[in-house]
Amino acid sequence: MSTAAAKQDTREALLEAGISVMVEKGYSNTGIQEILHSVGVPKGSFYYYFESKEEFALAMIQHLSQVYSRNMAKIFDDKSLKPIERLRAHFLESRKDMVSNECRKGCLIGNLSQEMADQSERLRGALIEVMVSKQEILSACIAEAQERGEIFSTRPARELSQATQMAWLGAMLIAKTSKDPAALDSCTRLIFDDILKEESI
Amino acid sequence: MSTAAAKQDTREALLEAGISVMVEKGYSNTGIQEILHSVGVPKGSFYYYFESKEEFALAMIQHLSQVYSRNMAKIFDDKSLKPIERLRAHFLESRKDMVSNECRKGCLIGNLSQEMADQSERLRGALIEVMVSKQEILSACIAEAQERGEIFSTRPARELSQATQMAWLGAMLIAKTSKDPAALDSCTRLIFDDILKEESI
Repeated sequence: MSTAAAKQDTREALLEAGISVMVEKGYSNTGIQEILHSVGVPKGSFYYYFESKEEFALAMIQHLSQVYSRNMAKIFDDKSLKPIERLRAHFLESRKDMVSNECRKGCLIGNLSQEMADQSERLRGALIEVMVSKQEILSACIAEAQERGEIFSTRPARELSQATQMAWLGAMLIAKTSKDPAALDSCTRLIFDDILKEESI
Repeated sequence: MSTAAAKQDTREALLEAGISVMVEKGYSNTGIQEILHSVGVPKGSFYYYFESKEEFALAMIQHLSQVYSRNMAKIFDDKSLKPIERLRAHFLESRKDMVSNECRKGCLIGNLSQEMADQSERLRGALIEVMVSKQEILSACIAEAQERGEIFSTRPARELSQATQMAWLGAMLIAKTSKDPAALDSCTRLIFDDILKEESI
């Protein structure tokens, strides 16, 4: 393996390890040493990969953004599903992740937004970009569901996608604090019955 | 002033200062020294007031819970307002606070939940208690609005109050990350039009 490829692999391993620690402990509480140790990278070489802890977190956000895009594409590009089924599959997937983590962790994007939006303009910029790009994917699918008459809300798809996103972010936070996925179920009803209006009324 | 009263005053001043720093910086990022310094308490005497940083945060949560109860009572005990007007006044008040802080800070309860729910069972327990007690106040008012025919959703008031709470928590997070209160306006429409159904359809 070339040095550049090896460097790229180690960088990715550091990002993966960083994400898994930071999603649980938060930015400030995450020690770089712990991450270096878990990947087997010597103490002194962190700055070979990242200029600072902020750069490291920024790279994690960009990495996660790509992971989310890939995962969302698996569902939202699946034309064998009706648009409304893609939307349901998306939220079900997120619920599954939360339950498999015993309602710990949540989503690093939400967590870092809460913790760092006032602390770092660079992180805030990257975080809002991820939120907006998720909203756009949801919005396109909602518009398709509206066109096909699968949902009955006549509000602009963009407004509906923002409403579903805010409700889900709040439900994740309640689920994390109560350690109970009930909030996610109640949010699923809210999204499909009251926001999107899956049934005609 | 007696020693006990002076101790109580200093304790309150530490709590107020702690809340104002921690709501912006988060738990891990908040230095005790900075708070002691701002209140003019000598370095060594923190443990005279609180056993640990965790105890200090716990006391902040309890203090805030009392403040919230008092502030919510001002609105929700005001029988000159119709129940639906009390609900509107409550969310408007929260929006005002957020705007006056330029969409910084947010709510310490939400922030600490995100950061600490996986880190401290004691803080998590106190945080969920505050969330539930806010939900109960909203729920009682929603039930009253349902009885009076001011809102048309027939779902249990408890479910509606949880839905409004999760949407608002998510909207606060989006407002904080985007530094734009638009999410709170869109959430207000969501709450009154789609969740509570203020207008008959």
